[in-house]
Amino acid sequence: MSIKAKILLDEEEIPKAWYNIQADMPALPEPPLNPMTKEPVKPEDFVPIFPMGIVRQEVSTERWIPIPEEVREVYRLWRPTPLYRAKRLEEKLKTPARIYYKWEGVSPPGSHKPNTAVAQAYYNMKEGIERLATETGAGQWGSALAFGCMVFGLKCTVYMVAASYDQKPYRRIMMETWNAEVYRSPSRNTQFGKNVLGDDPNTSGSLGIAISEAVEDAATHDDAHYSIGSVLNHVILHQTVVGLEAKQAFEQIGEYPDVIYGNVGGGSNFSGACFPFVGDKLTGKRPDLKVVACEPMACPSLTKGLYLYDYGDCAGMAPILKMYTLGHTFIPPPIHAGGLRYHGDAPLLCKLVKDGWMEAVAYHQTDVFRAAKLFAEAEGHIIAPESAHEVKAVIDEALNCKEEGREEVIFFNNSGHGHFDLGAYDAFLQGKLVDYEYPVELVKQALANLPKIP
Amino acid sequence: MSIKAKILLDEEEIPKAWYNIQADMPALPEPPLNPMTKEPVKPEDFVPIFPMGIVRQEVSTERWIPIPEEVREVYRLWRPTPLYRAKRLEEKLKTPARIYYKWEGVSPPGSHKPNTAVAQAYYNMKEGIERLATETGAGQWGSALAFGCMVFGLKCTVYMVAASYDQKPYRRIMMETWNAEVYRSPSRNTQFGKNVLGDDPNTSGSLGIAISEAVEDAATHDDAHYSIGSVLNHVILHQTVVGLEAKQAFEQIGEYPDVIYGNVGGGSNFSGACFPFVGDKLTGKRPDLKVVACEPMACPSLTKGLYLYDYGDCAGMAPILKMYTLGHTFIPPPIHAGGLRYHGDAPLLCKLVKDGWMEAVAYHQTDVFRAAKLFAEAEGHIIAPESAHEVKAVIDEALNCKEEGREEVIFFNNSGHGHFDLGAYDAFLQGKLVDYEYPVELVKQALANLPKIP
Repeated sequence: MSIKAKILLDEEEIPKAWYNIQADMPALPEPPLNPMTKEPVKPEDFVPIFPMGIVRQEVSTERWIPIPEEVREVYRLWRPTPLYRAKRLEEKLKTPARIYYKWEGVSPPGSHKPNTAVAQAYYNMKEGIERLATETGAGQWGSALAFGCMVFGLKCTVYMVAASYDQKPYRRIMMETWNAEVYRSPSRNTQFGKNVLGDDPNTSGSLGIAISEAVEDAATHDDAHYSIGSVLNHVILHQTVVGLEAKQAFEQIGEYPDVIYGNVGGGSNFSGACFPFVGDKLTGKRPDLKVVACEPMACPSLTKGLYLYDYGDCAGMAPILKMYTLGHTFIPPPIHAGGLRYHGDAPLLCKLVKDGWMEAVAYHQTDVFRAAKLFAEAEGHIIAPESAHEVKAVIDEALNCKEEGREEVIFFNNSGHGHFDLGAYDAFLQGKLVDYEYPVELVKQALANLPKIP
Repeated sequence: MSIKAKILLDEEEIPKAWYNIQADMPALPEPPLNPMTKEPVKPEDFVPIFPMGIVRQEVSTERWIPIPEEVREVYRLWRPTPLYRAKRLEEKLKTPARIYYKWEGVSPPGSHKPNTAVAQAYYNMKEGIERLATETGAGQWGSALAFGCMVFGLKCTVYMVAASYDQKPYRRIMMETWNAEVYRSPSRNTQFGKNVLGDDPNTSGSLGIAISEAVEDAATHDDAHYSIGSVLNHVILHQTVVGLEAKQAFEQIGEYPDVIYGNVGGGSNFSGACFPFVGDKLTGKRPDLKVVACEPMACPSLTKGLYLYDYGDCAGMAPILKMYTLGHTFIPPPIHAGGLRYHGDAPLLCKLVKDGWMEAVAYHQTDVFRAAKLFAEAEGHIIAPESAHEVKAVIDEALNCKEEGREEVIFFNNSGHGHFDLGAYDAFLQGKLVDYEYPVELVKQALANLPKIP
């Protein structure tokens, strides 16, 4: 009998609870601070923009948080996702390592993002909220939230960075097909947007501006809340469904990863995939587990940033978070992995890196796309540039295993397909990709703008 | 326990043989004719362009043709595909009908096409062929063959219709990522292409021109063969893996379809999904099974064409086939379901329609996209415009069931995702879709150009 290409769980095995790693961390991250008062954020500070169901999760230290049956019912549309054995990649690399990946590209929006979008839409619906507002860059998160809102009958308003809105219409159309209202940001739909347009009518926008518009929209409308796609605790919590499923699948075949790789933008993809395993490391069950965050050299928060309090957003309106940061005013070079262009990282993930439980590496995008191409040749799937960061690391590790004759088990979360990123593949194939060195001067300037904490 | 959203087979249950419906047909279609001699095509006529493994399948009347283990091994990358229960669509329609669909959008190229591309590449590889040449319109078939060639180490040359090459670069990039060489057709790579460019350097090309280039390329190079994505018997044979898997999944849950819908361009998608069930009808096991082909009103070969001998291609170089045809010189209006713009249909499918075993309906594209949007709202997946044709039929039938209180089981093959068709969704959302009436005058002209059969 052949080795299975995919390990599939039954729908009944979709986890019934999310895993909260805070229950097992020997030391918790320092609390987020209110950007106005610089005091620790209180649960009630979140109330104007989040439902209580989400606020409770954001501050909870309970180990297991039940997944509502209505959310599991929607997860069934694409979950459990397959755990692939990348046997053809192993053969191509002639490695003794066994490579496994979770494939989140099968969700309707095409990534892991709906794992939290669906949950957030559910809790808002339960509390009578009629509409969610959010920002999106290239559109991965916006399309996930449009999908999540649609299945629970909520309206969805997405502020999409003008440059992407103009250049990448496909994700916008996807959102509109799922009934979202998509604004080119800055828009005339918010006071903040109007101000920005007043200063510069031809601006191409930024994620920071779009966040500010979405938060203003939510805060100024009683029927609306805000929704965020990464960084915060509740988002990471929802994403642990990925790692929990992977763990069950590994159990079925009697394997356990020796090393886990994942790409980090805000941190929810990687944390969601690895935290259920990292919990075993924290509790001494798997002391030798190696866990590696992969980030772009153009935006290397974990490898080159400072562990400090900084604003979560570019505008300085979001909570101040203790994290590895390049400075909230840092605008990374325009690499194709748009989802990794964030100046900081999730506080939970940063704390675990800081305390030595996990490590980090950074790569140039040409190397990353070379890895993605090799992966497509071996396994067929054309993956998102974000995911290609860990594929680069996985290939390097598999080749090390070959050199050293090590029979290691490697795991990574393949967080999404690259169907809307083929322009970037084209640039790579034509040799036109630009590698941006670590932008040391820009980071220096941005780090000079850190908030003053009393 | 909830009803499962997806019925999944184990990888070991990927069929071990394809089903050849000719073994169960009371009357076979009349044979294809050689376009030069107008005599029935002999197996050796195919030898310059197809490997013997394929030629044998093309003329076989054996009921079961074994699937090589190497092909099943590649199928495992995405097969078995899920059989979905469209429960959310049922709820939206408030229908007592139970709606099931096979979801082929999970394959790396995103459609059912690799089921045959992989098999064709395999047989060519086994016989020492180093390269396959083919044509593609919007790129679905070309990308499937690029993928199939890549996994078996063959080179792949794709002649892509110039209009699509210029306007739809994503499928081209997908092919190139999988190492195919893609020519804008007409090209300077063939004598035929040079001639066409000589007459009109600014032509936007056509599928007929691209076929002629691919066939010339294959026929004039010893190391190369031609590969076709629909219409012929061996292509339909390979696609029966879809219907066979569906049948197994239905058996597992104790269901059997009362009615099957599918879209028809060349016929391989629909035939592959329904023939294993139609076999039960032919042999008297399921006499009441209803089987309905869905086509565009703009290219209504089954509903408005004549059952006659006509050339398989626009240029009059391919075998002459007995089929429902609108005339091989008929150029259909530019509907978005590019895969359905074929003047004829597979002879096997046509014969079954002619003899009353199956029926056909035609729809306007606005109705088709309205159905696709409703499907996306209910089930999440944004599907190809081709597949949306049967979704229109399914929704109508489910509403009939509601009206008449009928508890029917409806099945269709959801043949691919619409990630590269979002421009068409945009046109629909903006109310800019054009409905083309049945182009009666164009068809009349084309039917005047039928080949003279002695």
